Amino acid sequence: RIMRPDDANIAGNVHGGIILKMIEEAGAIISTRHCNSQGGEPCVAALARVERTDFLSPMCIGEVANVSAEITYTSRHSVEVQVNVLSENILTGAKKVTNKATLWYVPLSLKNVNKVVEVPPMQYARKEQEDEGKKRYEEQKLDRLETKQKNGDLIFPVINPEPHTVGYSQSSLIHLVGPSDCTLLGFVHGGVTMKLMDEVAGIVAARHCKTNIVTASVDAINFHEKIKKGSVITISGRMTFTSNKSMEIEVFVDADPFVNESRERYRAVSAFFTYVSLSKEGKALPVPQLLTETEDEKRRFEEGKGRYLQTKAKRQAQMQQQA
Amino acid sequence: RIMRPDDANIAGNVHGGIILKMIEEAGAIISTRHCNSQGGEPCVAALARVERTDFLSPMCIGEVANVSAEITYTSRHSVEVQVNVLSENILTGAKKVTNKATLWYVPLSLKNVNKVVEVPPMQYARKEQEDEGKKRYEEQKLDRLETKQKNGDLIFPVINPEPHTVGYSQSSLIHLVGPSDCTLLGFVHGGVTMKLMDEVAGIVAARHCKTNIVTASVDAINFHEKIKKGSVITISGRMTFTSNKSMEIEVFVDADPFVNESRERYRAVSAFFTYVSLSKEGKALPVPQLLTETEDEKRRFEEGKGRYLQTKAKRQAQMQQQA
Amino acid sequence: RIMRPDDANIAGNVHGGIILKMIEEAGAIISTRHCNSQGGEPCVAALARVERTDFLSPMCIGEVANVSAEITYTSRHSVEVQVNVLSENILTGAKKVTNKATLWYVPLSLKNVNKVVEVPPMQYARKEQEDEGKKRYEEQKLDRLETKQKNGDLIFPVINPEPHTVGYSQSSLIHLVGPSDCTLLGFVHGGVTMKLMDEVAGIVAARHCKTNIVTASVDAINFHEKIKKGSVITISGRMTFTSNKSMEIEVFVDADPFVNESRERYRAVSAFFTYVSLSKEGKALPVPQLLTETEDEKRRFEEGKGRYLQTKAKRQAQMQQQA
Repeated sequence: RIMRPDDANIAGNVHGGIILKMIEEAGAIISTRHCNSQGGEPCVAALARVERTDFLSPMCIGEVANVSAEITYTSRHSVEVQVNVLSENILTGAKKVTNKATLWYVPLSLKNVNKVVEVPPMQYARKEQEDEGKKRYEEQKLDRLETKQKNGDLIFPVINPEPHTVGYSQSSLIHLVGPSDCTLLGFVHGGVTMKLMDEVAGIVAARHCKTNIVTASVDAINFHEKIKKGSVITISGRMTFTSNKSMEIEVFVDADPFVNESRERYRAVSAFFTYVSLSKEGKALPVPQLLTETEDEKRRFEEGKGRYLQTKAKRQAQMQQQA
Repeated sequence: RIMRPDDANIAGNVHGGIILKMIEEAGAIISTRHCNSQGGEPCVAALARVERTDFLSPMCIGEVANVSAEITYTSRHSVEVQVNVLSENILTGAKKVTNKATLWYVPLSLKNVNKVVEVPPMQYARKEQEDEGKKRYEEQKLDRLETKQKNGDLIFPVINPEPHTVGYSQSSLIHLVGPSDCTLLGFVHGGVTMKLMDEVAGIVAARHCKTNIVTASVDAINFHEKIKKGSVITISGRMTFTSNKSMEIEVFVDADPFVNESRERYRAVSAFFTYVSLSKEGKALPVPQLLTETEDEKRRFEEGKGRYLQTKAKRQAQMQQQA
Repeated sequence: RIMRPDDANIAGNVHGGIILKMIEEAGAIISTRHCNSQGGEPCVAALARVERTDFLSPMCIGEVANVSAEITYTSRHSVEVQVNVLSENILTGAKKVTNKATLWYVPLSLKNVNKVVEVPPMQYARKEQEDEGKKRYEEQKLDRLETKQKNGDLIFPVINPEPHTVGYSQSSLIHLVGPSDCTLLGFVHGGVTMKLMDEVAGIVAARHCKTNIVTASVDAINFHEKIKKGSVITISGRMTFTSNKSMEIEVFVDADPFVNESRERYRAVSAFFTYVSLSKEGKALPVPQLLTETEDEKRRFEEGKGRYLQTKAKRQAQMQQQA
């Protein structure tokens, strides 16, 4: 579809969240289709996990997004989908890869939302595709088990914060979950959640550096908890780390199923987003250093630095492989 | 994309206007791409005409719309696009054809919106494709020249109308044209206009028969006049004819570029929509007969009857050909 | 237009904010049209004030909203518009009055946004209409001058609040102002602001009473400050008063034009919303009493009680007049 002014920031760069939402919709369609293809129990695929995603180049207003999705692995109860996004300037015909994302879906029964149904096995062109898929499956499973939602970790406002401290840019947003946000099962689409998370992260980044910013990458996100229609969700973001030209923001999603009192507010998702600040020519600008004050802030900064250095090392290793 | 609750009426049938908007977006993308493919003056394709379109089967919430578009003819200054819409139930895998539409686009220069640029000629697989396309081109050209916008024909409210008279169901809607409604040139997308027209026509039909209604077809629409961002558009609809099981509604679009005084309010588009009333099982229900009162209403009823009989005769001829 | 699922809460009642937005759009159109009707300097009408508005009956999904607007008074630099909203059930034909609102607009020059242009005088059918309008004009002018934005008055979160305290239900929301939120002048539509205010107030009310709630009324709102495209706005709400069957919520809107650093965050609007809790049959339910803790909370509760009693007295006086 064509990118519209409402999809973009003032400089005309499309919000990463809009792209994440399109990716997730494509993934949900193809995996729901696959899981119902053998005539078993009717089911809807629910997003369980998104692998780390890099935004390779910004998309602009007026460009057309071409989204293609392919199933790349199936385990007994989950489906791996690879989604590619190409942006096309229909005036010049120029195309470029914007995103490559890997998503994991789990099929939930239409009759009993708590029942995971069996996934029909896919056919592999080569045996090694299956082996590589299985390896990715085991890795993500391990990572999902390791990740526990930090339920106790809340974000509290700071009164009269100094510029460039954590409290200065932290932000939160509430959203009432409406029918259009939900799947047939009445739970929020993972893509809708990711779009809101990117919105908050973007506001945190812009408050920090006061320039135009774009999403550079999103770390792997695990969706442990479903969010029901009618819930109020609070999305909160705080900056954790800055390098010379990038900012890392941690985002929490808390759900409050407040009309139905049987359940307390709970942490549904959390993730790290990385942003860069762009000049009008599209070059990355230096960003102000984050000022850490408390022990927790310093610890989170060091942890963020660790993730940053690890990603950098991985990228250099990949480049050397390609060279 | 997946059809959402907001795309549909209370019975879950997707509004015809949503489908028309998707069709037009696909047509605009493919024709803009084609017109810029030879590296000439950058341009944006503007919708000039939509041929008569039948809605073959209603689409429902949760189904996925597959829209495909193909260029089928090019003249020096216009492009014919054929768009097909398939609806797919991703749970059962069932697919059915929802629409086949033919649209004509004209490429307008990005630098000078009043200049029509030249269209790169397409390659035809067979010579007869070109001949048939040329025939369609000549026919629509004639029809476009014949159509004059009936500027003087306004819809006035009636006080305390009797049930099933024209005044009883007539409706109008005003809309302020915002950025998301517009192309890169700052003019309203044809698809946005058609969506609003269908919305008004649907209200007229529902007021008349008080049941769930769906769009059955739209007569050819000519877009003679562009509508600029910031304009206020008034979309008015009145019933012109009823058969046993269908209702014909005439819809006018008047644009008022009211901030910029250089121009008076003008008629931008007009069209005839046909609706049927559906039972819960999807069967067409009888509709109340339209009561005509004035001479004009009686004349329009007869004209509508003419269109209805002509369409019926055409369809029977097609069926006999296929049999 | 037809009310859609996304316009409503889970019980199917349309959010008051959706209605306020439609009212404001109608007012903006009619007053912009009037101010440009005499061929003076092109201008756009900006919302300056909305008088107290009662929601007489809830509107439901599938109903059609009929919005009509009329200019009722003009001063040299402002326009008074009366907007009526009728809800119509198109299946039964039943209509009822949903709202009557009075709005004041000021025409701003399209060339120089800080210049208020002159309003062409309207023609009155009777002299007393003009006199009554002038009286209303003087009254609202006085009220606007008296109202000062309480800039220092912020809402701070409370850790582990007790149920039914002020801290328990208070909420805030951030919104990045996009192109569709804005007028041709690049400033947020008053209606967009009111819709967001109603959204926050509704969440506060629902958190307090855990049932389905609807907007009952909105006190007069003055729009002292414009909000520019690209700003981040924070909308915060806290409960100030409860009677047996109603809740009063104070809502603040703070704007942060953060990309352009010339200006600090500022208070743009504030207002009081009143909500009631409805049973499935549409009857008002008792609401839990608000627990006040601090001196400020107790003072605000008493002020709210004053407003409540005043409104009640006024309504009784009106009823006696009518009887």
